[in-house]
Amino acid sequence: MISVSVVGASGYSGIELLKILVRHPSVRIDKLFANSSAGKHLADVAPLFHKTLDIMLEPYSIDKIIKSDLIFIALPSGEAMNIVPAMLSGGKRVIDLGGDFRLQDTSLYERYYKRTHTASAILKQSVYGLPEWNSPQIKSAFLVANPGCYPTSAILPLAPLLKDGLIESNGIAVSSLSGVSGAGRSASADMSFAEVNESVRAYKVGTHQHIPEIKTTLESLSDTPVMFSFVPHLLPITRGIYTSTYATLKKPVTEQTILAVYEKYYESAPFVRYSATVIPEIKNVAFTNFIDIGFRINQEYGQLIVLSTIDNLIKGAAGQAVQNMNIMFGINETEGLQ
Amino acid sequence: MISVSVVGASGYSGIELLKILVRHPSVRIDKLFANSSAGKHLADVAPLFHKTLDIMLEPYSIDKIIKSDLIFIALPSGEAMNIVPAMLSGGKRVIDLGGDFRLQDTSLYERYYKRTHTASAILKQSVYGLPEWNSPQIKSAFLVANPGCYPTSAILPLAPLLKDGLIESNGIAVSSLSGVSGAGRSASADMSFAEVNESVRAYKVGTHQHIPEIKTTLESLSDTPVMFSFVPHLLPITRGIYTSTYATLKKPVTEQTILAVYEKYYESAPFVRYSATVIPEIKNVAFTNFIDIGFRINQEYGQLIVLSTIDNLIKGAAGQAVQNMNIMFGINETEGLQ
Amino acid sequence: MISVSVVGASGYSGIELLKILVRHPSVRIDKLFANSSAGKHLADVAPLFHKTLDIMLEPYSIDKIIKSDLIFIALPSGEAMNIVPAMLSGGKRVIDLGGDFRLQDTSLYERYYKRTHTASAILKQSVYGLPEWNSPQIKSAFLVANPGCYPTSAILPLAPLLKDGLIESNGIAVSSLSGVSGAGRSASADMSFAEVNESVRAYKVGTHQHIPEIKTTLESLSDTPVMFSFVPHLLPITRGIYTSTYATLKKPVTEQTILAVYEKYYESAPFVRYSATVIPEIKNVAFTNFIDIGFRINQEYGQLIVLSTIDNLIKGAAGQAVQNMNIMFGINETEGLQ
Amino acid sequence: MISVSVVGASGYSGIELLKILVRHPSVRIDKLFANSSAGKHLADVAPLFHKTLDIMLEPYSIDKIIKSDLIFIALPSGEAMNIVPAMLSGGKRVIDLGGDFRLQDTSLYERYYKRTHTASAILKQSVYGLPEWNSPQIKSAFLVANPGCYPTSAILPLAPLLKDGLIESNGIAVSSLSGVSGAGRSASADMSFAEVNESVRAYKVGTHQHIPEIKTTLESLSDTPVMFSFVPHLLPITRGIYTSTYATLKKPVTEQTILAVYEKYYESAPFVRYSATVIPEIKNVAFTNFIDIGFRINQEYGQLIVLSTIDNLIKGAAGQAVQNMNIMFGINETEGLQ
Repeated sequence: MISVSVVGASGYSGIELLKILVRHPSVRIDKLFANSSAGKHLADVAPLFHKTLDIMLEPYSIDKIIKSDLIFIALPSGEAMNIVPAMLSGGKRVIDLGGDFRLQDTSLYERYYKRTHTASAILKQSVYGLPEWNSPQIKSAFLVANPGCYPTSAILPLAPLLKDGLIESNGIAVSSLSGVSGAGRSASADMSFAEVNESVRAYKVGTHQHIPEIKTTLESLSDTPVMFSFVPHLLPITRGIYTSTYATLKKPVTEQTILAVYEKYYESAPFVRYSATVIPEIKNVAFTNFIDIGFRINQEYGQLIVLSTIDNLIKGAAGQAVQNMNIMFGINETEGLQ
Repeated sequence: MISVSVVGASGYSGIELLKILVRHPSVRIDKLFANSSAGKHLADVAPLFHKTLDIMLEPYSIDKIIKSDLIFIALPSGEAMNIVPAMLSGGKRVIDLGGDFRLQDTSLYERYYKRTHTASAILKQSVYGLPEWNSPQIKSAFLVANPGCYPTSAILPLAPLLKDGLIESNGIAVSSLSGVSGAGRSASADMSFAEVNESVRAYKVGTHQHIPEIKTTLESLSDTPVMFSFVPHLLPITRGIYTSTYATLKKPVTEQTILAVYEKYYESAPFVRYSATVIPEIKNVAFTNFIDIGFRINQEYGQLIVLSTIDNLIKGAAGQAVQNMNIMFGINETEGLQ
Repeated sequence: MISVSVVGASGYSGIELLKILVRHPSVRIDKLFANSSAGKHLADVAPLFHKTLDIMLEPYSIDKIIKSDLIFIALPSGEAMNIVPAMLSGGKRVIDLGGDFRLQDTSLYERYYKRTHTASAILKQSVYGLPEWNSPQIKSAFLVANPGCYPTSAILPLAPLLKDGLIESNGIAVSSLSGVSGAGRSASADMSFAEVNESVRAYKVGTHQHIPEIKTTLESLSDTPVMFSFVPHLLPITRGIYTSTYATLKKPVTEQTILAVYEKYYESAPFVRYSATVIPEIKNVAFTNFIDIGFRINQEYGQLIVLSTIDNLIKGAAGQAVQNMNIMFGINETEGLQ
Repeated sequence: MISVSVVGASGYSGIELLKILVRHPSVRIDKLFANSSAGKHLADVAPLFHKTLDIMLEPYSIDKIIKSDLIFIALPSGEAMNIVPAMLSGGKRVIDLGGDFRLQDTSLYERYYKRTHTASAILKQSVYGLPEWNSPQIKSAFLVANPGCYPTSAILPLAPLLKDGLIESNGIAVSSLSGVSGAGRSASADMSFAEVNESVRAYKVGTHQHIPEIKTTLESLSDTPVMFSFVPHLLPITRGIYTSTYATLKKPVTEQTILAVYEKYYESAPFVRYSATVIPEIKNVAFTNFIDIGFRINQEYGQLIVLSTIDNLIKGAAGQAVQNMNIMFGINETEGLQ
């Protein structure tokens, strides 16, 4: 049994993580930590846990996790870097669901996250936790930076196409649609039901903090400079991300060519589904750890349209974190995720 | 007073049209026609009209409209072409909200609408009813083809940029999101609440019938061949379209340049609002005849992102139809639409 | 022309009021006041007003309203009582959309609103602004207390039945469902999209501040003590209230009896629609000033079920306020509301 | 391992059932049957099963289920009675999720379901599958009638109160709110997104087919004649039922009294949660087999308000069916349901 603790257990990612962990046959939940909710029972903050997880939320301190094999951090970005160095020093393994350890270049972090990085010394220990590409490094990592939700939805469909040179690496348009839970659990007039319902809005156009994560990861995986425009849109749904990508084909291709590239990289990936015929829909991946990928070739103009969808809280956060845990601890990659 | 009749009064566009017409100070409603609902009171089919419009739905016949100055047709595409020739022969003026008279090239019509065009003889009389560009021709037209909802949302923001050569006319990506009412009022498992809610799906990727309408209109307005990919997505909202367009700038521009181009073409357009700072949101145009346009320049990669939004049933259908009527009959363009 | 000012113009009720007033043919908007938004243009706070209402939001002071014939107050309850006494002293007429002047008994106010009433001296000048019952008093009032949204939905269907003795005045169950806009425009984790969507919750069971308003109004109109349980529920819709009431019939009745009672009291009420056959639906009253009333008789058990629905922001707030204004200033009751 | 087949596998209840069964550690899925979808792969009808359940949908025939220990029937009411007699004759055990075997009195069935009952001979073998009350009979049953969704939400909170005489058995008002999936998966203009979204409507007031099921079950469990009014309402959510019940207390009670009664009957019920402080919310039970029960006492008027909520597809259908299966086959009642 893996003994795990969660820091930031009462936010949306934390709750989703607990819903998975409580059913995971190889996991024992050790401690749960929260900030404003510390001192309360989990079930008082999230009544869905009544009768399924009877545990207190505590204020975090390093000495409370000595019996934990693994610590999940589900805090807002900017908070993990204050506590992870001591965890690593203490020999603990860590999966951070936030953005603090995803960018190796602190100047990018500081530009997009608009704060100073205070733990740059441990950045080089961080492994980007995208299991479909980095499984060997994840296996031995002590610090896994769990990918962002938008990056997961964009990198998985694009990386094979860029790496194998099927599409131009510039002029790419990435149009993403996200449910509201991606913004976290907090009081905000902008996120109130009456403001979000029956509407759509683009936001952080060209400035979203996931842009450098997508760019550096795609460049690293494909060994090519990648230039794209990224527009996230807020939708009136609770969960799910839908990403539509428009790229220029380097030369004419058939559906079979595209399928073969996906098969090459994802044939044994348990949570990647791709098809030339099925158009992805959020509802098919909701509450699962799958990413669904579809595509259409516009032969007339030499363009490729790639559609992908994930559950932002599962494959885009908690599920992928558990997938990383499974890899780190040598158990079946799909355990607890089906 | 303009005496108007509506053929197809019980669908979503027809109902929306009636909601506008019933308050329009210069309009007298003459006859309402429907197919399956003929013989019923309007208020029995659409209870919102109780106490505001007490009128029967009748089966259509040409002899019933002799007292009408104008006939609105709000039928599914493919039905108007069967009845419009006789209306024109009878000297009537017509605004068709469907797609039968928007494409001058019947081969395009037949390819995208998948049916034979049976009234090609009158196509050359048809004026594309986009008031911001075609007002003089609309004024004297007997047959106005009211634009489609997606085309309205895409053409208005793009036409000035293409005409004045700010953006490349190829490699454009048009990503559109639509509410469900755009699909019309009918029984369909695909459009049932439980299938649409909490989900998103792209559909008719590369095959949507609005593609040739957008293409030929932009080419005609800008006098340039235009190549783009268009992906419509179905969202869990009732009304509204949000279109995000990604284009390559021909050379670096400032926000002021873009604003100046919009001002050049739309300064006196009463229903076009544009801004370099306000990001469009569906809720700001819902239930209005406005189109809101915003944009962001990606100077680093030389790309322009243009965002636009309309109410698909108003500026994308019934409102624009009334705007066209106002122009045709020489009254204030905004009458009944504020 | 009636010169009107609005205090609290940037909340949901205030915005809805402005949407009506800007189109009202007999109204000139004088001044708009706001708290946190003071100093901004209205269109910066509510972009839907771009091109339709170009006006600044100002901090309120009594000397700024000297040219106004009428002041609408759309502030959270508890704030109007601080400013209305001076308005009345200055000879101004006032319609308050909040709860400060609806209860003549300050002990009830203080129990349910949980604050001290600081303007009890002017309470007796206040007229409860339910036009269908109090039109003569409204006509000459200087201070109109616009009814609450739940009370409007419950009192209109119940008052005739109680007054004419068709139903028992005890054991009544009032189950109300409300959209989120009823809670006002503010930052609250409880009202965030992700918390409200795909869920329902009852709230303030037995303690809601509208309970004494419903009770005292029904008792006053029917001259009978009335005992009922009231449960408000929060729904994932933006606007609309649906109230289902269960009462015991005093003796067997026919549908015709019920219809006759409604006809007796509401025959000439322009915004009350009732039917023995049409089941009310929120969508039929959304964005209108109508209340729709339906009912079913359970002959077997001697129970009557009454269903009613309004748009909480129109008939439940801004629309009813304008209806009251029309009555106060002797113009057609429906002007600006169709 | 229990070998199970499902007849009606492609409807909402069938799909939900398969999502549970595919993860159930003691179940082997034998055959899936469908009508219009027969001949297709399950994953083509419900793409969420790609990579998780690779199986064909077949047309049903009795000879195909010889290897099944248990057959779940998830067909529309009226279809099960045509096939169950032969199953029972063949020695098979059956759980029917429809309404055909819930009412022992065929005259009630015929009045409310508006069709003749063609299998009345086997009705007396049918056990009403409410595990919290009928577990011993379920254990040995060959035919289990799985309860309806509304009845489950209403009977569980009311039965203890009626049985122990805390509330009057007449004058009860049951106001229920349901998500759209309760209506099943079919094409219907009434259930289209645009008709349901942003609205609420009561339906089948006083005539819903679940009325006799609630009545006869409560009467049987409490040994008292029970009289109530029941109004179901359709809400714009996909899943969930929220039931608010208003009853008259026989004498004053405390919260402790109510809690004690629930504890008496449900202390060991693994899926019943009750509380005097937590107000039930659909989101806390969504995707689970729990029922949450809350209540408030109106001491002033001697009324009790009971609030309850379930996931209509889980505790109201597929989850309860699996709970029944677990009991029938002597495995842990909660297996596969956590």
